[in-house]
Amino acid sequence: MTPHYADPVAPILIALMLIGISAELGGWLVQKVGQPAVLGELLVGILIGNLAYWLREPIITVLREGDLVRQIANQAFSHGVSLVGAAQAMLPPGPATARLLAALGETSGPRAVSIYLFVDDLSRLAIIFLLFLVGLETSVAEMRRVGKRAFSVAVVGVACPLLLGLGAMELLMPAATIVHDLFIGGILTATSVGITARIFHDLGQTKSPEARIILGAAVIDDILGLLVLAVVTGLVVRGTVSVLGISVITLKAIAFLVGSIGAGLWLTPRLVPRIRRMGFRNVRLLVGLGLAFVLSWVATKIGLATIVGAFAAGLILERFFTQEMEDEHSLRDLLSPLESLVVPVFFVLMGLQVKLETFLNWPTIELAAVLTAVAIVGKVVSGVAAGRGVSWISVGIGMMPRGEVGLIFASIGRALGVVDDAVFSAVILMVLVTTLLTPPLLGIAMGRGHA
Amino acid sequence: MTPHYADPVAPILIALMLIGISAELGGWLVQKVGQPAVLGELLVGILIGNLAYWLREPIITVLREGDLVRQIANQAFSHGVSLVGAAQAMLPPGPATARLLAALGETSGPRAVSIYLFVDDLSRLAIIFLLFLVGLETSVAEMRRVGKRAFSVAVVGVACPLLLGLGAMELLMPAATIVHDLFIGGILTATSVGITARIFHDLGQTKSPEARIILGAAVIDDILGLLVLAVVTGLVVRGTVSVLGISVITLKAIAFLVGSIGAGLWLTPRLVPRIRRMGFRNVRLLVGLGLAFVLSWVATKIGLATIVGAFAAGLILERFFTQEMEDEHSLRDLLSPLESLVVPVFFVLMGLQVKLETFLNWPTIELAAVLTAVAIVGKVVSGVAAGRGVSWISVGIGMMPRGEVGLIFASIGRALGVVDDAVFSAVILMVLVTTLLTPPLLGIAMGRGHA
Repeated sequence: MTPHYADPVAPILIALMLIGISAELGGWLVQKVGQPAVLGELLVGILIGNLAYWLREPIITVLREGDLVRQIANQAFSHGVSLVGAAQAMLPPGPATARLLAALGETSGPRAVSIYLFVDDLSRLAIIFLLFLVGLETSVAEMRRVGKRAFSVAVVGVACPLLLGLGAMELLMPAATIVHDLFIGGILTATSVGITARIFHDLGQTKSPEARIILGAAVIDDILGLLVLAVVTGLVVRGTVSVLGISVITLKAIAFLVGSIGAGLWLTPRLVPRIRRMGFRNVRLLVGLGLAFVLSWVATKIGLATIVGAFAAGLILERFFTQEMEDEHSLRDLLSPLESLVVPVFFVLMGLQVKLETFLNWPTIELAAVLTAVAIVGKVVSGVAAGRGVSWISVGIGMMPRGEVGLIFASIGRALGVVDDAVFSAVILMVLVTTLLTPPLLGIAMGRGHA
Repeated sequence: MTPHYADPVAPILIALMLIGISAELGGWLVQKVGQPAVLGELLVGILIGNLAYWLREPIITVLREGDLVRQIANQAFSHGVSLVGAAQAMLPPGPATARLLAALGETSGPRAVSIYLFVDDLSRLAIIFLLFLVGLETSVAEMRRVGKRAFSVAVVGVACPLLLGLGAMELLMPAATIVHDLFIGGILTATSVGITARIFHDLGQTKSPEARIILGAAVIDDILGLLVLAVVTGLVVRGTVSVLGISVITLKAIAFLVGSIGAGLWLTPRLVPRIRRMGFRNVRLLVGLGLAFVLSWVATKIGLATIVGAFAAGLILERFFTQEMEDEHSLRDLLSPLESLVVPVFFVLMGLQVKLETFLNWPTIELAAVLTAVAIVGKVVSGVAAGRGVSWISVGIGMMPRGEVGLIFASIGRALGVVDDAVFSAVILMVLVTTLLTPPLLGIAMGRGHA
């Protein structure tokens, strides 16, 4: 045997290729039956993840654990424990944990973790690209025009699920504290606009009033969600609400949005031509992605979603960057191949993390059914607040998917001890159903059968 | 304080933005003085890496350790030690090690490692993109036409540095074994075509006979290098050479290249129109990158460089994929924004890993000077074998950079105990000088002052 140097990127090459082909196949199949491609990407992820788990394939068994893999890696890095040791310390004993521990203990374990970290980071960048592109298709003036409607939709879309969730919990679990019920209600308020944005993007409907209202409402919703989270965690941890703390959070979020968009709109036309005159190559790509990355970073640092920052960056650059400039391609043209390659990675990875085996439990299904019903009704109703002249049902359905935002909320609840495993599984099922229902329902509501 | 969820991609957003801006600035500055952009990207990496180390910035202190960071991460993952513990076990005690241990021990340590792993994987993908694109600009017929010349250049370019290196070591270190000297000579044979390909690509000279000869020679060189490595490690480990082993390696490498290119050329025009008719989106991107990724993967699995596989994939798809097809963009158009964004990441990261402080040592500089002289003369001479009608000096200079291939060879030697720290530092300096000299010299030789 000769000493062998295999490039460490080798497993990632294969992983990306398999994900790319799966996404394409999944999207192609569902489009045949008139569904948006994103549904196929989610379903193919669910299929592969669960099939591989059933067949005891160790690498995908690791990948489907999602964010837990990153936490395990961080533990291993900082506390001097092995991957298996870190997982053991973090998870309750049981057959599912044993399967994961076995997969992590194989020689492929570290490789699986490396693949996860790379693909997960890439998919997070992908969703930032997507919302940046959607922002580029939307002007600030257009957003302002739908501002009031978006605000109403957001407020109703937060209040309804919160109150309905509170009520449902009172009925289902009368023994639980009001704070517990409030937290569950809070989980139901989150809107994850990634799927909706993708569908509108694929349908070429990003400029429709419905799309603008949903996008605006989703941004406001993210701020409201931050406040709800602050209030309920304040109640859980200290039993009181800090008015000062809440005000600071609100002010920071609003200052970020207003400040970055205002400063951006003022600076861009003054700065970019100057940079361009200095003879830099790639001005559009660098300024565009640079701003998207910086605002995404600031957004997540103040507790908002990265995609809110990316969307704001797109809004700022819309006027200046979308038209063709001299002989150069528009930013949209430059980014769209990148987008069509990497955005599906996000959705396949999301599907991969759906563990069907955790739903094989009657109380979980019951609880999930109630949460899902409340989650759907609460958001669809919010569409009515969009007012006349737009399809209220489209707006309502567009606000429906909870995506990862609901999961983040729920995992904070689990860390605080308010959310137990049964509720957590039910929340995942709720997220899954609202997410999977959105593409077909929105397709029908928008009066088009394909994306 | 509210519980805070910061997206784990946040540090990567900042890292990518800083690398992108540095690359652009570095490229812009050197282009002002008539140098190829890649030189600026390397230099800006060297500047930032060493400045940050001097200022004791912990994250870049980790990043500049290069492949060692990955080995530390793998150790931590599989052996249940902390990052600090893994580094401590792998490195000799000393002030440099202490600095790295301190940086890894900070709270930012795990974050720095995660950033390294992502950026390194991304840069490895980038160089695969680059060689795939260069392959797309080259036809098999053209490569065949320069085949004999490329072969001569490759053979001379391996034989000369090997023999010169052997002779120089005999003079410098008469006490060392012949096997040791052979190994050092072997290190000098490697050609890393990334930099040269990038310069020809930037100059729009990929179709020049010089570029084709260099690319062909580099592919053959990679196979010859594999053989040299097999022979010298065989001598080190067992004291003999296994003729069977060497034959198997040669056959595998040739079978891979001939087989994949032959099968690819036959299959592509038969398969792709069929896939296209089935209504898949993104056929070009998926088939193109899919093939590039698969062949890169196979190449590295049989011991060749990933970029040899990527180049072969480009050759295969050249005829079929470069022309505009219906209303779709050509693959080149689709990939070039991606390329201009991510390829500079590779070169900045390469610069970042140049540790100037290891060169502050007279015997190292002396040894490095000899190795560098031998490395330059040995390769430049090989240009003469290119024959008449082409610029032999351009071909010779184009074969000069050793890049990471020389480093890989040297690290295998270190693992086997043939290469000590002094020789290793000298090899790094040799790689640095041959790499940094190539852009300006090739620019002059090609009769053009800018890229």
